[in-house]
Amino acid sequence: MSQQLRQDGSLRHLITLEGLDRTLLERLLDRAQTYVRTLDERPINAQLLRGITVANLFGEPSTRTRASFELAARRLGAEVLNLEVHLSSRTKGETILDTVYTLQAMHLDVLVLREAEPGVPALVAAHVAPHVSVVSAGEAHLSHPTQGLLDALTIRQRKGDLRRLKVAIVGDIEHSRVARSAWHALATLGTGEIRIVAPPAFMPGPADFAGCARHETIDAGIRGADVIMMLRIQKERMAAVSVPDAQTYFSQFGLSSERLTLAARDAIVMHPGPMNRGIEIQSEVADGPQSVILQQVSNGVAVRMAVLEAVTRRR
Amino acid sequence: MSQQLRQDGSLRHLITLEGLDRTLLERLLDRAQTYVRTLDERPINAQLLRGITVANLFGEPSTRTRASFELAARRLGAEVLNLEVHLSSRTKGETILDTVYTLQAMHLDVLVLREAEPGVPALVAAHVAPHVSVVSAGEAHLSHPTQGLLDALTIRQRKGDLRRLKVAIVGDIEHSRVARSAWHALATLGTGEIRIVAPPAFMPGPADFAGCARHETIDAGIRGADVIMMLRIQKERMAAVSVPDAQTYFSQFGLSSERLTLAARDAIVMHPGPMNRGIEIQSEVADGPQSVILQQVSNGVAVRMAVLEAVTRRR
Amino acid sequence: MSQQLRQDGSLRHLITLEGLDRTLLERLLDRAQTYVRTLDERPINAQLLRGITVANLFGEPSTRTRASFELAARRLGAEVLNLEVHLSSRTKGETILDTVYTLQAMHLDVLVLREAEPGVPALVAAHVAPHVSVVSAGEAHLSHPTQGLLDALTIRQRKGDLRRLKVAIVGDIEHSRVARSAWHALATLGTGEIRIVAPPAFMPGPADFAGCARHETIDAGIRGADVIMMLRIQKERMAAVSVPDAQTYFSQFGLSSERLTLAARDAIVMHPGPMNRGIEIQSEVADGPQSVILQQVSNGVAVRMAVLEAVTRRR
Repeated sequence: MSQQLRQDGSLRHLITLEGLDRTLLERLLDRAQTYVRTLDERPINAQLLRGITVANLFGEPSTRTRASFELAARRLGAEVLNLEVHLSSRTKGETILDTVYTLQAMHLDVLVLREAEPGVPALVAAHVAPHVSVVSAGEAHLSHPTQGLLDALTIRQRKGDLRRLKVAIVGDIEHSRVARSAWHALATLGTGEIRIVAPPAFMPGPADFAGCARHETIDAGIRGADVIMMLRIQKERMAAVSVPDAQTYFSQFGLSSERLTLAARDAIVMHPGPMNRGIEIQSEVADGPQSVILQQVSNGVAVRMAVLEAVTRRR
Repeated sequence: MSQQLRQDGSLRHLITLEGLDRTLLERLLDRAQTYVRTLDERPINAQLLRGITVANLFGEPSTRTRASFELAARRLGAEVLNLEVHLSSRTKGETILDTVYTLQAMHLDVLVLREAEPGVPALVAAHVAPHVSVVSAGEAHLSHPTQGLLDALTIRQRKGDLRRLKVAIVGDIEHSRVARSAWHALATLGTGEIRIVAPPAFMPGPADFAGCARHETIDAGIRGADVIMMLRIQKERMAAVSVPDAQTYFSQFGLSSERLTLAARDAIVMHPGPMNRGIEIQSEVADGPQSVILQQVSNGVAVRMAVLEAVTRRR
Repeated sequence: MSQQLRQDGSLRHLITLEGLDRTLLERLLDRAQTYVRTLDERPINAQLLRGITVANLFGEPSTRTRASFELAARRLGAEVLNLEVHLSSRTKGETILDTVYTLQAMHLDVLVLREAEPGVPALVAAHVAPHVSVVSAGEAHLSHPTQGLLDALTIRQRKGDLRRLKVAIVGDIEHSRVARSAWHALATLGTGEIRIVAPPAFMPGPADFAGCARHETIDAGIRGADVIMMLRIQKERMAAVSVPDAQTYFSQFGLSSERLTLAARDAIVMHPGPMNRGIEIQSEVADGPQSVILQQVSNGVAVRMAVLEAVTRRR
């Protein structure tokens, strides 16, 4: 995906974190950090993106991610257009591009795409005019780059240097774009040890998640970890892997406060939301002192501000 | 609901008018009055709420109320986020709060909630961070506080001193949040006489609407009244009380121009909209010289401006 | 429709281009031209309509037209309210007007209406307060005035003087509001020859499209034409006229690059979008050097800016 960068090395599209270098990621995180505000401070209200139009094209529903992008854009002074446009190729490849060409002819600057179908963001990015940027807000099971960045930002805020950290990502790794983008970000940023922790049915093939340690039990997987990233389990997938019910899943792979004691004493607990309380995570943990789940949400807006600013900077 | 106020007595949430004191209500109405413009004047376009983000979370559809809040917020310079988020507890109490915590972590300032389920606004208000305010845009059959305020403002504009007025609220009182909020506002403001007028099936129990005069026929109920507030009848409720059809309802409980002569000669006619013409109100009355129905709509925007300003004032 | 104009001759509503005079159309096109920007330029970002509120009331879905109006309004500094309001008279004429009166009581300035039911825009325009303007974004099969203007603007940009031009409109003329509004615009602007080209089942009656040349085969219809406007074919209509399938329609009435050689050598090809590639137009033509289809989209925003400015100018 070298085509995410302009010839001068600046970021034009953000479709995947894979292949972006450490300097670029760190610059995005540094910039995002300047946009972070605590809950009792006022959020940023700037005009850096005045005259820029950002279109949200969400083919999959996601109120929270859409809201986060919308707030990020507006707090930098951009206009936001929410469009109910499906870019699925079920209605032929040309239709996707006709829609995109039509939108760019109206002078949209950034297309924020969320699609269940893999390949759509890259297809669109390969065809848009030079003044248009594509930012993925989640692509199939493959990539959720702004989530990966907000996860990295949250870890950096809490833990500082990543080189000494053990990070455990726990759950349905195989089907998780959140896990993939976290892995890309954390590996590039030089994280000491990244573990993927999943029952066999949810463990990705050996070619995937190269360099990660693998654990098939949560107890082994989180032992001594500094960061535990719990993933949301899709309930329809539990049946597919013959987990009879939510209670069984929780007993085998849920993060309880008892289990949490296996991790480092100052370990932080993350979750991309929305949580299934009592299934992959116990309420006591989700709301406990080690949880940084709401800080992730706040960081999401800051990261998306930095990304929107970066991709539109040259105009 | 003393928890609607901050320790200094200022308004933080607006969930019900019940329990708010006369000074506070009058201050809101006075402020709203400064935002009123006639149809041939330009509306206010101010920046008092610049940097404030208002989220509309409408679990029940209501285009007109949503539009009224959206215009009120934008005309004071606030950002508005329209979210399709259901806060129903059908999916467990924690889910409501997770949604709310997520939204507030994005630095939303005001959550405007409309919910068919009683108790949701108070639940949310009890858990939000200090910088977040909850404003109800209609809660079950219980409360519609901005409607109560706009009704009071309209009466005050037309009639001045409320102490000498007879106000008749007519229709399905039992199931009406409009009636309850009007009663709260008008009683607190010292209205001379408040009558509730309904067939027995729609008459609330004796503990409810304390201090109101009760009439079971419209003719007796509106006799000599200075203000007649007609309520919208839900058609599915007519069957439940064995009113065979709309014509029968109109003949028994509709406001015709003939009936209107029973009221004071300069009586005003109100309706919260949308109207069922020919059922609870005759077109001739709705469009006649005594109708103030569209003035209510205009006042709705002004009242919501005053409320949004009041709850965010301290920030 | 003389009621589209104010007494001083300025444009108050835009419901149809029929009956508007050449000077008025040319003034709109001249103004729109000042808003045109190439794709590598920044779009206009002005404040001419600051304080104006434009409501999009789309009874028929149309993401692209809604987006175009929304961008046009916002780039001139207006507020935009997207409302899911159906103005259908299926629920009685008074209901339409109640909705409209309610919206105007909130101080909306422009109602942008898209309706499948004929007569709704004119009905609304006949009843709104003096400060409210109605702009049609498509009315049944009758009228799509901003489309007609953007088509005229595109032709003028490419061909200059219309008096010497031969324009062929090809497809389901009978059911096309695009064709009717193009005809109104082009006839008023003095176009040399306007041809309507359709199979008999899609050819309008003789009283309609007065003054247009008629052709029942595309080969005859486009011969020597300077401008070819292809219409979108509704797939459900093909069956109604016993065209067995898309291939047959294309072979009989589609614009292929081979057929295009029958037109003038420098003929331009237009389409209102969205295209059915391979049915009414071949991809090679749609994407070829003679296609001005995306220029039409860009011009759409510029034309809508000029229209919104014109109808609100007096306030």
